[in-house]
Amino acid sequence: MEKNRLEAFSDGVIAIIITIMVLELHVPRTADLAALAGLLPVFLSYVLSFIYVGIYWNNHHHLLHAAGRVSGGILWANLHLLFWLSLFPFATGWMGENHLAPTPTAAYGLILLMAAIAYKILQQAIIAREGRDSVLARAVGGDWKGRLSPLLYLAAVPLAFVNVWLASGIYVLVALLWLVPDRRIEKILENKETP
Amino acid sequence: MEKNRLEAFSDGVIAIIITIMVLELHVPRTADLAALAGLLPVFLSYVLSFIYVGIYWNNHHHLLHAAGRVSGGILWANLHLLFWLSLFPFATGWMGENHLAPTPTAAYGLILLMAAIAYKILQQAIIAREGRDSVLARAVGGDWKGRLSPLLYLAAVPLAFVNVWLASGIYVLVALLWLVPDRRIEKILENKETP
Amino acid sequence: MEKNRLEAFSDGVIAIIITIMVLELHVPRTADLAALAGLLPVFLSYVLSFIYVGIYWNNHHHLLHAAGRVSGGILWANLHLLFWLSLFPFATGWMGENHLAPTPTAAYGLILLMAAIAYKILQQAIIAREGRDSVLARAVGGDWKGRLSPLLYLAAVPLAFVNVWLASGIYVLVALLWLVPDRRIEKILENKETP
Amino acid sequence: MEKNRLEAFSDGVIAIIITIMVLELHVPRTADLAALAGLLPVFLSYVLSFIYVGIYWNNHHHLLHAAGRVSGGILWANLHLLFWLSLFPFATGWMGENHLAPTPTAAYGLILLMAAIAYKILQQAIIAREGRDSVLARAVGGDWKGRLSPLLYLAAVPLAFVNVWLASGIYVLVALLWLVPDRRIEKILENKETP
Repeated sequence: MEKNRLEAFSDGVIAIIITIMVLELHVPRTADLAALAGLLPVFLSYVLSFIYVGIYWNNHHHLLHAAGRVSGGILWANLHLLFWLSLFPFATGWMGENHLAPTPTAAYGLILLMAAIAYKILQQAIIAREGRDSVLARAVGGDWKGRLSPLLYLAAVPLAFVNVWLASGIYVLVALLWLVPDRRIEKILENKETP
Repeated sequence: MEKNRLEAFSDGVIAIIITIMVLELHVPRTADLAALAGLLPVFLSYVLSFIYVGIYWNNHHHLLHAAGRVSGGILWANLHLLFWLSLFPFATGWMGENHLAPTPTAAYGLILLMAAIAYKILQQAIIAREGRDSVLARAVGGDWKGRLSPLLYLAAVPLAFVNVWLASGIYVLVALLWLVPDRRIEKILENKETP
Repeated sequence: MEKNRLEAFSDGVIAIIITIMVLELHVPRTADLAALAGLLPVFLSYVLSFIYVGIYWNNHHHLLHAAGRVSGGILWANLHLLFWLSLFPFATGWMGENHLAPTPTAAYGLILLMAAIAYKILQQAIIAREGRDSVLARAVGGDWKGRLSPLLYLAAVPLAFVNVWLASGIYVLVALLWLVPDRRIEKILENKETP
Repeated sequence: MEKNRLEAFSDGVIAIIITIMVLELHVPRTADLAALAGLLPVFLSYVLSFIYVGIYWNNHHHLLHAAGRVSGGILWANLHLLFWLSLFPFATGWMGENHLAPTPTAAYGLILLMAAIAYKILQQAIIAREGRDSVLARAVGGDWKGRLSPLLYLAAVPLAFVNVWLASGIYVLVALLWLVPDRRIEKILENKETP
């Protein structure tokens, strides 16, 4: 299994996910500013999800960059991640169109949580193949962001039923945490290249 | 005809198919759990179809990996396969939205059957070009999964009018059979590389 | 301008066009065979358009294969072709949903005509750059299919208002003519490779 | 970060944007010419946006061609540009369906303005990495088009509330200005190759 076809397929799926999300931003019937104002919650959900998918694309790139050959397990772990990412447009539209009602806001967090777990599984599948001493294994050693994010999502899901602003605030916070790309792997790789 | 452009095009089409299927999961108007519960049949159909398209993408990769140059016949056999795969979102949505009613469940099986036949035709077109002694021809020699699946789909189509759970159970069973990637070609190729 | 990025972009657009066309095959509300029967005209239009887009993708590949570097003119001639191809889903849906009513059937022919003209312009733009003695210039010398098709489309557009079966029969006929891939360029290229 | 995966992802997103825009051209219920006439404003908006996205794809190609390695900043500047481009289908549909009403026409200009600013930021991010003496830095030195366009969009937004034809005339004018691809970088690169 060649890695580059897996990358190309994942890029294609992620590119489609990030773009069809905008279809939830339905063209309003009326032509006034009030129509735009009504779309604001959907728009803001779209911005947040766009950033999340961008983060996943970015980190996915770094992750596969650190992988050598692709096994069947890695392939299905990757499809599993793409499955949860493919639910982002649905979760984004549901949360946005209902103006951050508790259930959709919790559902959004659940999808984020599942995607985070799927990413972790993919990471483990690659490490299992590359070995415990591999660049990747060492790079994710101190992966506090990767450990903290699922816990924050897990907290946000029940919190959505208490206060949706708390839950959505957590989603924004985690996105900001990750906006800085995962330079750890990059750094170790660079160090390796220039010994 | 270069193989890699055929692969890239097929990857693109399959990536779009697997992603637009999720558009059948319409964002509900209401924001409660009952709305999600009503979507469950569509969601489960989506999961099943996602796995099927993933299986096709995976096997398609192995198949083309074993092919050398691409003839006009292979190109059209490939487009023929993509045509039936492109009907998955329709069949998935129809079956899911009607909560596994007999006719849509039978139609889903029919699309699965046609895709399986199209895959077989593509396989034969490649073998016809590569020769009876090629790696691929030997690899598919004991292809019991490839022979059994169409028979099971064929049985499931009329069974859908008797009991939809039997028919859909067959679809799930075949998917599970295939979830293990087609390692035969991989193995023979590896043996060839390390003689 | 590198040719491969133009190819990749065109592949992407064509892959999306061929796949979103299926979205015009709306999932019916009811679950009986009558619902499927009602979709038959849309389905047949989809099959025809799928074949047409497949033909364009195939011939486009051969055309660009014969091109060297890509100029600004070639780039825009290519985008112009993609523009008319992008209207295939609309024309297909309109013709199918109205059960081959005269105006949509004529409109379908008009889009086919415009795409054929756009293909011709792209061909000329490449020949202009490659030179009159190039492989491509010689290959299209006896291009009777490329000359006949626009004339047939041109005849079909007014014929649609007389008899839609005549017009749609012409569309099917031209598709069958082209189903055989453009082997001329292939042959000359092969002869060149094995002198 | 390898440049080619960034290019491939951007190509994918832009290919999807340019193609899903056509989905705003809803298939009319009736089959007469009047139905088509009613679609004319949406169609013309689509043509204009298709040209704009084509221009962005073309210039984006030249821009990345001039870039060396890709930093995290460049990656996010690129995603930021794709974000605004992803709003083109929405803005196009809203303007077209409301027959160039003032607010949607102004909104269209605002999206054009934001995309232009995002393009500028991406350009600066690449120059920041490549250095002030780089090919790109010199190439954009006399970038009168890049400087003029945002000013024209900025003028068009309020003008849309005075006279929509003035505003949309400006959009058409800027598109025509850019239809000529950015040959400056191309030229300097060519000079470099043939010293």
